[in-house]
Amino acid sequence: MGKGEDTREAVLEQATRLASQVGLHGLTIGSLATRTRLSKSGLFAHFRSKESLQVQVLDHAAALFVDVVVRPALAAPRGEPRVRELFERWLGWCGSGQLPGGCVFIFATNEFDDEPGQVRDRLVRAQRDWMETIATVFRSGITEGQFRHDADPDQFANDLYGTILAYHHARRLLRDPQAERRARNALDRLLDAARAAPALT
Amino acid sequence: MGKGEDTREAVLEQATRLASQVGLHGLTIGSLATRTRLSKSGLFAHFRSKESLQVQVLDHAAALFVDVVVRPALAAPRGEPRVRELFERWLGWCGSGQLPGGCVFIFATNEFDDEPGQVRDRLVRAQRDWMETIATVFRSGITEGQFRHDADPDQFANDLYGTILAYHHARRLLRDPQAERRARNALDRLLDAARAAPALT
Repeated sequence: MGKGEDTREAVLEQATRLASQVGLHGLTIGSLATRTRLSKSGLFAHFRSKESLQVQVLDHAAALFVDVVVRPALAAPRGEPRVRELFERWLGWCGSGQLPGGCVFIFATNEFDDEPGQVRDRLVRAQRDWMETIATVFRSGITEGQFRHDADPDQFANDLYGTILAYHHARRLLRDPQAERRARNALDRLLDAARAAPALT
Repeated sequence: MGKGEDTREAVLEQATRLASQVGLHGLTIGSLATRTRLSKSGLFAHFRSKESLQVQVLDHAAALFVDVVVRPALAAPRGEPRVRELFERWLGWCGSGQLPGGCVFIFATNEFDDEPGQVRDRLVRAQRDWMETIATVFRSGITEGQFRHDADPDQFANDLYGTILAYHHARRLLRDPQAERRARNALDRLLDAARAAPALT
């Protein structure tokens, strides 16, 4: 990696942390210059435009998410253990683990849902990829005979995402000490509903 | 109502619509002046500061939410019919009914979860009130014998909020045509789990 690439990566790391707190709109070249002690003109040379910076922050966050959530989860045994590993790591991502202001994607969703363009397109791709990954992980539990064969993986992905969004709200806004317990209860209930009914003997 | 109060209400209505699209941070006195054709100095006279404007937008949105969601839901029969009425009206609120950019409270949550102050305090109060209202409505179903006596109303409120957040994401960001169906499926599953088990005879 060249020096320019190292700098770019270091700036993107700071930018992603900042975006988790102030959003992609709140992320200005000025605030990033202060934070990284680089000149505004140097930052412009790296990122060209605010929109390009925002897209690169989403790329950076997506790569980080794969490293700390997706890849380790896929190393767990198929089916329920993999779903649980994915969920625990995702809770950590939203809580405090990686980014000081919570999940960048959740914040960006509200900022860009009404705003067509490259940033919205990149975000939609990230979210669709993620929902498909959840559905695929869930499906491994059907194949393994742990979940009912007629369980709906896309519905499960939808409901698991809702569980995480409720957790993000309860923990980050309400600072509810029950947030984690409630999220785990919700997961247990989703898995109960998915689990194969005992054979009628 | 005096003329000043009429103007203030009309401006708050526009400000709330705008905040649903650009967030409370994106809501500037300048953009509001353009939209309402009032002078910036006139707007400053009404609202004093941006923070005061943001708090008043949340007050306005909370009053609107009571009018279009809470009050009509409370007119439905106690228990499950009331839960369903509340859910349907809440879906409408998030979808397209009232505000062009979706739910103001969901957007504001991400903007202010890391930002102490009057706006965050007002938002936390609105969200706590709402979670308690959901729990109270659910509890009426326990009292009526429709839901299990050991069902947890706060867990239900948490899970119902997650269902709505997943819907907001699927509909507004992903434009998923299945969003509404998935939300209703999730509600049905929550109610199945809450419903009193049939007596063992």
